[in-house]
Amino acid sequence: MTATSLPTIKFLQQPTSMDWVEQAIANLDTILLDHSHCERKAAGVALNLMFRYPSSSKLVRSLTAIAQEELEHFELVNQWLDRRGIALAPLSAPPYAAGLKAQIRPQEPDRMLDSLLISGLIEARSHERLGLLGTHCPEPELAKFYRSLMASEARHYGIYWTLATTYFDREIVNARLDALAQTESELLATLHPEPRIHS
Amino acid sequence: MTATSLPTIKFLQQPTSMDWVEQAIANLDTILLDHSHCERKAAGVALNLMFRYPSSSKLVRSLTAIAQEELEHFELVNQWLDRRGIALAPLSAPPYAAGLKAQIRPQEPDRMLDSLLISGLIEARSHERLGLLGTHCPEPELAKFYRSLMASEARHYGIYWTLATTYFDREIVNARLDALAQTESELLATLHPEPRIHS
Repeated sequence: MTATSLPTIKFLQQPTSMDWVEQAIANLDTILLDHSHCERKAAGVALNLMFRYPSSSKLVRSLTAIAQEELEHFELVNQWLDRRGIALAPLSAPPYAAGLKAQIRPQEPDRMLDSLLISGLIEARSHERLGLLGTHCPEPELAKFYRSLMASEARHYGIYWTLATTYFDREIVNARLDALAQTESELLATLHPEPRIHS
Repeated sequence: MTATSLPTIKFLQQPTSMDWVEQAIANLDTILLDHSHCERKAAGVALNLMFRYPSSSKLVRSLTAIAQEELEHFELVNQWLDRRGIALAPLSAPPYAAGLKAQIRPQEPDRMLDSLLISGLIEARSHERLGLLGTHCPEPELAKFYRSLMASEARHYGIYWTLATTYFDREIVNARLDALAQTESELLATLHPEPRIHS
């Protein structure tokens, strides 16, 4: 069964299944803790790209803004953890991010293109899933919080896309995005047994 | 000759020499570019500590705020680079940070203590040197900019100190800080020939 209450996000080849929504709703505390890790990791990814391409001015400036916003969200999610008495703690990662990272070709400039597109895909999926939580979460305040984060996740994948097309020809970007989006959807085709944002 | 126009910063065993001020003033563009790298690196260091100690709630929350502020400063310095037509570009690092990092003992909990104190020392030195630029820089607007950054650098070393005393006994912190501060001053005793914030 497919969660059809939201329009399909551009970039994503397959929408999230209702199985994920049910798993997430049944494990809201774990999802919040994993969400905290996701925001911190997203800030880390943006910063790593800034370190790797320190002379690419547009990339550096755009990713500074993304990293700042991810850290704001990280703090907001941590305030939710606080309010619910959930301690910050490590959490095993689902295979999603590692599976995507394995697709990054090691030679430049392919590495840059793949890194930007994979970050964009993760943002797009996060946008979709936070939107599903915003729609289906039975706690109104928490649902509202998820909806409040959606706009910037959408902006983020737009920024990664724009950066890709700044540094690469649009045809090359489109072809590679198609291939990576295919992998992205495949990685989520089977629900990971541990509830996560990207299970 | 010692730059005596500012009070000695708590933590620092030796004040910065006037030689550094003269070198910096004669190379303001390079100092600005290096400053940009320093702000980005400071954000990276804070984020790395958040990744290394994800369950240490006070550390994570405090360093989130620091990382956010470093990224704000990074963007502000980059706006200065823009205005002066200085392209973002890599710059060789002076031996300072690597020399300090070499002092970090590899075993926990020593590693955490040393990491916090070294970050605090770097912030303290940055506070002192930005203050010197704020006093001696011959361009009034740029001098004003340096002065505007000083308060948060001071707050940052206070936060690293507070974190150290949160997780460790004050006597242990004081003894280790003395030893590390000694090394920190020794690393700057000979002016590095390339103009840098920490030359």
